[in-house]
Amino acid sequence: MSRLFVGLETPFVQDLPATLNKVHEEKMNGVAAPLFHPRFQRDDDGLSDTRDGPQTRSDLVLDSRGWTASVVGVVSKWMDLDATTQRVRLSAEKVFKQEVAWASHLSVPAVLLPTPRHAEQSSNYARVLNQSLTQAQYLQFWVRILLTPRQQSCAKAPMETDPVAGLCAAAAVMETEENKHEALVDPWETWDSLRARCEYHPKLFVALEITADLPSAEVVQRWLGEPVKAAIVSTDIFLTNRKGYPALSQRHQKLMAQLFQHKVQFYLSGRPRHREKMLPYVQYLHFLYSKLPSQDRKTQFEAPYLDYLQAPLQPLMDNLESQTYETFEQDTFKYNQYEKAITKALEHTPDDKESVVVVVGAGRGPLVRCALRAATLANRKTRMFAVEKNANAVITLRNLKISEKWDNVTIVASDMRSWRTKERADIMVSELLGSFGDNELSPECLDGAQSLLHENGISIPCEYTSYVAPVMSSKLWNEVKVHDSVKSFETPYVVRLHNFYALAPTQRCFQFTHPKFNTRIDNRRQAELRFVAAESAVVHGLAGYFDAVLYGDVTLSIEPDTHSDGMFSWFPIYFPLRQPLRFQKGEEVVVDFWRLEGNSRVWYEWSVAPGSGTCHAPIHNPNGRSYWIGL
Amino acid sequence: MSRLFVGLETPFVQDLPATLNKVHEEKMNGVAAPLFHPRFQRDDDGLSDTRDGPQTRSDLVLDSRGWTASVVGVVSKWMDLDATTQRVRLSAEKVFKQEVAWASHLSVPAVLLPTPRHAEQSSNYARVLNQSLTQAQYLQFWVRILLTPRQQSCAKAPMETDPVAGLCAAAAVMETEENKHEALVDPWETWDSLRARCEYHPKLFVALEITADLPSAEVVQRWLGEPVKAAIVSTDIFLTNRKGYPALSQRHQKLMAQLFQHKVQFYLSGRPRHREKMLPYVQYLHFLYSKLPSQDRKTQFEAPYLDYLQAPLQPLMDNLESQTYETFEQDTFKYNQYEKAITKALEHTPDDKESVVVVVGAGRGPLVRCALRAATLANRKTRMFAVEKNANAVITLRNLKISEKWDNVTIVASDMRSWRTKERADIMVSELLGSFGDNELSPECLDGAQSLLHENGISIPCEYTSYVAPVMSSKLWNEVKVHDSVKSFETPYVVRLHNFYALAPTQRCFQFTHPKFNTRIDNRRQAELRFVAAESAVVHGLAGYFDAVLYGDVTLSIEPDTHSDGMFSWFPIYFPLRQPLRFQKGEEVVVDFWRLEGNSRVWYEWSVAPGSGTCHAPIHNPNGRSYWIGL
Repeated sequence: MSRLFVGLETPFVQDLPATLNKVHEEKMNGVAAPLFHPRFQRDDDGLSDTRDGPQTRSDLVLDSRGWTASVVGVVSKWMDLDATTQRVRLSAEKVFKQEVAWASHLSVPAVLLPTPRHAEQSSNYARVLNQSLTQAQYLQFWVRILLTPRQQSCAKAPMETDPVAGLCAAAAVMETEENKHEALVDPWETWDSLRARCEYHPKLFVALEITADLPSAEVVQRWLGEPVKAAIVSTDIFLTNRKGYPALSQRHQKLMAQLFQHKVQFYLSGRPRHREKMLPYVQYLHFLYSKLPSQDRKTQFEAPYLDYLQAPLQPLMDNLESQTYETFEQDTFKYNQYEKAITKALEHTPDDKESVVVVVGAGRGPLVRCALRAATLANRKTRMFAVEKNANAVITLRNLKISEKWDNVTIVASDMRSWRTKERADIMVSELLGSFGDNELSPECLDGAQSLLHENGISIPCEYTSYVAPVMSSKLWNEVKVHDSVKSFETPYVVRLHNFYALAPTQRCFQFTHPKFNTRIDNRRQAELRFVAAESAVVHGLAGYFDAVLYGDVTLSIEPDTHSDGMFSWFPIYFPLRQPLRFQKGEEVVVDFWRLEGNSRVWYEWSVAPGSGTCHAPIHNPNGRSYWIGL
Repeated sequence: MSRLFVGLETPFVQDLPATLNKVHEEKMNGVAAPLFHPRFQRDDDGLSDTRDGPQTRSDLVLDSRGWTASVVGVVSKWMDLDATTQRVRLSAEKVFKQEVAWASHLSVPAVLLPTPRHAEQSSNYARVLNQSLTQAQYLQFWVRILLTPRQQSCAKAPMETDPVAGLCAAAAVMETEENKHEALVDPWETWDSLRARCEYHPKLFVALEITADLPSAEVVQRWLGEPVKAAIVSTDIFLTNRKGYPALSQRHQKLMAQLFQHKVQFYLSGRPRHREKMLPYVQYLHFLYSKLPSQDRKTQFEAPYLDYLQAPLQPLMDNLESQTYETFEQDTFKYNQYEKAITKALEHTPDDKESVVVVVGAGRGPLVRCALRAATLANRKTRMFAVEKNANAVITLRNLKISEKWDNVTIVASDMRSWRTKERADIMVSELLGSFGDNELSPECLDGAQSLLHENGISIPCEYTSYVAPVMSSKLWNEVKVHDSVKSFETPYVVRLHNFYALAPTQRCFQFTHPKFNTRIDNRRQAELRFVAAESAVVHGLAGYFDAVLYGDVTLSIEPDTHSDGMFSWFPIYFPLRQPLRFQKGEEVVVDFWRLEGNSRVWYEWSVAPGSGTCHAPIHNPNGRSYWIGL
């Protein structure tokens, strides 16, 4: 996790270097400051400039590094892009574009935009913003959104603590009757309408204004699925502790901890109400940050992969590399479970004869080691076979046989589906599972290898199940969109989901068991799952997980509710949707999923639609046109 | 410049960790070591493995980091991909692919491939290599190429110092009669044929074997335009200094200095002939490295931009950002020249009246400052105008007018082509030149602004000329090819050329002068330039440069032979060719260049062809379809 960023939201300051010095003295990292003086009102000729004096302070007051590292530009709040009179609207557009152009010129990382009016009343705001988003190259646009709608008039808007800005407050949109009504609307709806009209633009972010009243945990969770880049924390929401220092309520503390995990920048706003300095507030945020639990091994391992899309492995078609084996061999939890499962299974084999264990897909031998340890624990004499198709891994296995004296182990360089032998094993051990359980073709491989087992033989694993949940994540949707092709939207990705919101708990999708003697084998599947949206949200795709029974009560799981502690071999899988779909709170989300096969290939098709039938969504990946797994 | 890498080429070693320890003790960074034992000859069933023992040492002797950081895999030299009998060829192909697969498995950064036979005799080598290049994801392929052809039989091939490898030497291709003949062919031709058949693949590199005899300076220069990744330095080529330590000849020292500039890795090979250790050789190379002149400001500034393609600025259509102004304002040399030129020009204005200076395209004011300093130096009373179309830069100018008391300067927020005034200036100063002189539309802008000058008025600059040379650079060609579109191959790029070879000295292309009163203004141009290739080479594109006369004898130049010392405002410009063209030494390279205009646009078209007319090459960018500059 990166260092905590705490900045200050300031009124317009002429002497920016002096302000930054003070801010740095109080241990803050930068400021969010107005780009132009709020009294500098421009008419609709705003840009054809006939004035003699400069329109704002010079860019030379800081070098470009200073602007980039320490300043976010606040766009004038008084402009009204959705005013009823055209003259006011056109003038506001000129002001907006002039300020955005100036911000780009300065190379500040972002502009902080005023809170839009509610959805239906902000179409021109959305249009002007969408134009700017499309033109700007590096600049980010942060839209100020209240966490909870204000019940009262906005007497505490932070800018009003500035006497100069106060002059303009009379004109501010927040004060009108219309807006008092509007303030009761869910602010998320305002955001959702705006960003949907801007097609989920990747440079568009939320600056969340933390309010004294907090919404439900579910609503907070939904914000954590949104691209929140900044949190504006007014000094008004702080309580005072026994020593007279600022502190936050328990619920606010929890919220901060959640925001810390998402690399959000914090901007303090308003007047200091404790000891007349901002420093105690800054120190308090750093104190909360320091209370975060220190990172365990799994968290450290996962950190660089958060929300990073990877193509799923195709270990059947491609040979894994040494490095990949090396990474997965380090998952102690997983191999401990395998050791337990093999031990239990061996204990069920007769103790008066040699037990035969075949490891199929032995790789560089971690399951062979588990089986050898299990044989000792179960006190069984064993004969083992390690079957591996990757010629490179076979070199490792043969070296191990010598160096680790695997005298009872035979190395077999063959595809498990084609090895013919008269041996019949008591136990067949494999680790062919993917993030979605069956997506690395474990069913087909184990079916092809089950003739190696005698009729009462045991497969470890003996069962695995996939799980699905509809998720909102404009972050992931944009990552897929980078390639902007149907193919990329019809391909699942392995990804450590982080900036996302699940609209409902996961549901079971497909299940497979092994071995399957005396039954017709068919690994095609179909499932229709019906979810109920816990909050209004957008579905950008489906999150996939799996769990597996190795043997008896020994299991592995990456399903969120039952995730095996400390196991890091599998990230979730993400199936994108080409078009995001909006659902109301309580509405039914119908997910259809197929597992299909043909032409030596296996593939999935999927679709998502509202239960009401008001909208019909396309089925993704017909005939595996965009993504398939080779047999 | 990154740290010097010195490695050791070793015979096959079973105990790689021990060898690496010794190598690190002798201050070396890694090894180039055979992947398989040279005695491990495989038949054409090489891969369907029925042996019991491992085929080579285990990947587990190092972790994947160790393999990646410290080992380059040497592919067996004895295999003959172009043998006359099919059985030998097929067997060689299996060996080659097995070894490349093993190298990929290990995640070593590169394989070192044996020297191919001469062009016409290595078609199967090229085919097999091309297949591997297309499949491998990260692996680099380094082809071992002699710097000078060996006159004798190859008694000093480094592997033969190894007694085990010696067993195979009898079979080595180098020893046959056929190859003694072949050894007289220019090794560059062998390389050129191979890489052309592999379509200049970006993962294909040269490992240059440094010989005791060195080729001409021109041939060395040509190698510096090739993707040389490694230099193999035999202990045989070292002399002994008076203290008994190894040293290199002056010419070899110069070559090493050139290779250092290109981030080449060095691999020592052969037996130590001085003090029975490799350490003195390593120390000597580090000594040479330390003798490189330390980096001046310009070199440091340029380092991150070597061979990095940038789209040319379009300051007329786009507004420059504050950061861009900031960078260019730091070019002290350039502004000193402007100051000199304005001073001289002012000295030619009458001293009994106020001189009028107009700066067109004033940006954030650096030329205004030059003009103010020049007025003091020339002891002239002046009235100045700073004309700038970028509204953001006008804010800076107006702030400067106040803070720096520019009382005699008027700021004019206008496009220089449309400002109408009754003032007539004595001197018009501008800095509108691009890397190719006219490519940022200086001609059109200054023609449009010249009515601001009175009839004897002076333009600074008063003249500028573009220059062109045909260049070989598979590095740059591949950078363009990443986008793989006609558009990308018909766009010029601003780039600090580094890994390239100019086939001939630059020639003048287009020239422009200002002002142009009493003459028909036409800025269209055509030039046909005829170059003679100094060595056989491939033309991948054209390098463009410019020089300019500011006033009198005060000039600026980025043309290689006359480049102004320490000036860093302009990198060269690179016009790519869609298809690389091969020229023989002494052959004529005909370059046609046009500057054209229409529909408020200016664009270039260009083509390259042999003077013999044996090949007709397409004209690039017809009608400016891929690239144009907006007026």
